[in-house]
Amino acid sequence: MRNFITIEGCDGVGKTYQTKLLRQYCEEHGLDVVFTREPGGSDIAEQIRKIILDANNSAMDDLCEAFLYAASRIQHLKDIVKPALSAGKVVICDRYVHSSYVYQGLGRGLGLDKIVQLNDIAVGDFMPQFTVFLDLSPQDAFLRKGGADKSDRMEAAEYDFHIKVYQGYKSLIARNPQQFEVIDASGTKENTQRQLREVLIRRGVLR
Amino acid sequence: MRNFITIEGCDGVGKTYQTKLLRQYCEEHGLDVVFTREPGGSDIAEQIRKIILDANNSAMDDLCEAFLYAASRIQHLKDIVKPALSAGKVVICDRYVHSSYVYQGLGRGLGLDKIVQLNDIAVGDFMPQFTVFLDLSPQDAFLRKGGADKSDRMEAAEYDFHIKVYQGYKSLIARNPQQFEVIDASGTKENTQRQLREVLIRRGVLR
Repeated sequence: MRNFITIEGCDGVGKTYQTKLLRQYCEEHGLDVVFTREPGGSDIAEQIRKIILDANNSAMDDLCEAFLYAASRIQHLKDIVKPALSAGKVVICDRYVHSSYVYQGLGRGLGLDKIVQLNDIAVGDFMPQFTVFLDLSPQDAFLRKGGADKSDRMEAAEYDFHIKVYQGYKSLIARNPQQFEVIDASGTKENTQRQLREVLIRRGVLR
Repeated sequence: MRNFITIEGCDGVGKTYQTKLLRQYCEEHGLDVVFTREPGGSDIAEQIRKIILDANNSAMDDLCEAFLYAASRIQHLKDIVKPALSAGKVVICDRYVHSSYVYQGLGRGLGLDKIVQLNDIAVGDFMPQFTVFLDLSPQDAFLRKGGADKSDRMEAAEYDFHIKVYQGYKSLIARNPQQFEVIDASGTKENTQRQLREVLIRRGVLR
């Protein structure tokens, strides 16, 4: 879908910060870009987000969670993304179907095929023009966040989960390289931001 | 799934009342039967139910709604239905996948195939031992509820929706008759209850 751009990456890669810098850039240059995020982003979608993220809901079934993400996605497309695109705007969305593929399908082990099938029912062929992947391994993300002294406190199960997610992204990109713009996020924040803007300008989304 | 029984029917057919009578019967006869309902039935599932049924959420996308019903269903199976069956109990559930097939798939017009596919992902082959269909046409249900003097106040769109749902049930039953026990619910409440108990006894669920 033209002008619909999604951003993906592992936890700790700096998506939120990079998006904030990008938003500032757009405001300074008078570019009317809609920044949004999943899950949530609209009233009903935020209600669903709340259930997903509520720490008291730890008994949630993994497949139930995958359905809630998809439900939130459908509503968010209807309320935010599609109206903005119809109005001729660029939409940059923090996470989309690829997060479900790797987090629920691979990280949680529900199976990639099942989660792809589920999201095909949810969004049909409404896929982003392209997807930016901020590439930083969980090891590096963790070191950046907390430093080496904390790394031994990361639980093995949690570490294993993030490795699966990262490898999942890499395998999606290998299978469908034309969908992705991969950005090396291992350098400074400024370096990552520069690459991000270059990609968006080269692809005709920003100027 | 042995000992998992679902009850279906159009709005106004008297499912709630019939289930109440059945529950009383089981209590009086010392039968350890779990009565439950969809959507909801467990903590997380009830949170999802609340979003679905909130009158302020009228902007909800039909497909989002179908995903929420399926999410609630998955959690309800995990929290209520499967533990009770594992403990050797009979579970009688007010509504299950067939409600989604006819309400979302046919009533809302999302398409039966899509909703069947969605629910196949949600529940796999976890289907009821059999499904009781309380058979009463929307016309008759409406007349029973409000009488003829109110019938002209029913909106055409609403009426059309309920007719689609009823015909949807009929067509599911015609395609898969061995799944259903059809009960004529056009007589007295007592008559319907008698038939319902007879079916459950004949199928070895009650005694």
